[in-house]
Amino acid sequence: MKRIMLTVAYDGTNYHGWQTEPTGISVEEVLNKALSKRLGEDIRVKGVSRTDSGVHARGNLCIFDSETPIPPEKICYAVNEVLPEDIVVRRSEEVPADFHPRKCDSLKTYEYTLYHDSLPDPLVRHFTTFFYRKLDVPKMREAAACLVGEHDFSSFCSAGAQVETKIRRITALSIEEEGTRVAFRITGTGFLYNMVRIIAGTLLRVGTGFWPPEKVKEILEAKDRQAAGPKAPAEGLCLMEIRLFPEGFPEEITRSWN
Amino acid sequence: MKRIMLTVAYDGTNYHGWQTEPTGISVEEVLNKALSKRLGEDIRVKGVSRTDSGVHARGNLCIFDSETPIPPEKICYAVNEVLPEDIVVRRSEEVPADFHPRKCDSLKTYEYTLYHDSLPDPLVRHFTTFFYRKLDVPKMREAAACLVGEHDFSSFCSAGAQVETKIRRITALSIEEEGTRVAFRITGTGFLYNMVRIIAGTLLRVGTGFWPPEKVKEILEAKDRQAAGPKAPAEGLCLMEIRLFPEGFPEEITRSWN
Repeated sequence: MKRIMLTVAYDGTNYHGWQTEPTGISVEEVLNKALSKRLGEDIRVKGVSRTDSGVHARGNLCIFDSETPIPPEKICYAVNEVLPEDIVVRRSEEVPADFHPRKCDSLKTYEYTLYHDSLPDPLVRHFTTFFYRKLDVPKMREAAACLVGEHDFSSFCSAGAQVETKIRRITALSIEEEGTRVAFRITGTGFLYNMVRIIAGTLLRVGTGFWPPEKVKEILEAKDRQAAGPKAPAEGLCLMEIRLFPEGFPEEITRSWN
Repeated sequence: MKRIMLTVAYDGTNYHGWQTEPTGISVEEVLNKALSKRLGEDIRVKGVSRTDSGVHARGNLCIFDSETPIPPEKICYAVNEVLPEDIVVRRSEEVPADFHPRKCDSLKTYEYTLYHDSLPDPLVRHFTTFFYRKLDVPKMREAAACLVGEHDFSSFCSAGAQVETKIRRITALSIEEEGTRVAFRITGTGFLYNMVRIIAGTLLRVGTGFWPPEKVKEILEAKDRQAAGPKAPAEGLCLMEIRLFPEGFPEEITRSWN
């Protein structure tokens, strides 16, 4: 019996998120079916990050145990043969039998991308959020800086989340602008329900001048979802990468936190 | 009565090309329907470039005549309201009543884009061609250089084209490589049926080492479709821009040809 970890990329457009729900087809479900078919065992993956309906991923992770004789690093090729083209296993590897990525320290990176122009571009419509209003990117960066660090992100969490604490740590939040592409890149040790999309929606309010940058500090302090901006649409969001630290965060990472 | 020119972008994935055919729904057809509905007249656009089934565009052009009181530059917003999201009119403008872009000198630019990696990326699958074999880009550039200039491109034209001459002029052909993206960017005064895709397919044969770069010169000289490589798939191709020169090509362009 081997424990296998997969790195999974998907176009979330046609899925009701990662996790199996009664409301519609999920990425997890399609992956379970494909793995079970290809490996001839009943496979149920355990995911690391439950992306929402319509959200994309380039580097979500999941694990499962299998008796398959296929070499671990070849499993990705085998399962891709039976997966639909909107889900691709980008990597497969063996991990220790007691390894569970959800129990590791981790850094997740999301990108929220806007197509910023007066009219939409049909070629990027599924993977960006169209935004035509003028944006003051330096002001958005100023606001974003208030969010970096360890904070209680209650204002940036949709109702329905059952978590012990709403304290999270954002280690980096940058905003890149290149032509019509504006991308928020956000890395943290964990994210609350809808947190990245509420941050994006709030920063957009700053970018359009509806709120001054310093308002974001007030929003954090309010610890109230009503204080923040609206949740930005799912299509602009992509889970880019999950970095795992099975031995705990190394010092070169925690050093910058203090 | 005003003559209006539209700049049209579309995701060609679900269309049987620009032009109305009995085999399936076309971009032109959907555009005619939307314009007729929105302007309350029977509109039939005249296109400039008949892109193939599955091929995309960021800057195709078409014209039509209308009595609409909507200001020409606002027509794009009006028609986008009723167009499906995979077709967007990016610009609308009035042109002289006797203006016809197909009668103007023009430079068309196409991009053929590869996603070059060992496994596909589901987020770019509709707008790139997945290619996993090793590519020698400098050799492809060497081969591409043989195609620039005025040549008889009979070897790069699919059967079925009814044209007086197969002599065309390619003014630029560059190959950009940036991470997993390899893009052929090709500009010319006109293109034969499937010409860009056959050029891409031929350059890929050079890139993989199947043919040496100098083979492309032989292929041109053969004036025989059988001599060239296969036509590369439609999804990687996008018509980027059509530059029109109603007064004929200016000297700064023709100067470089001689």
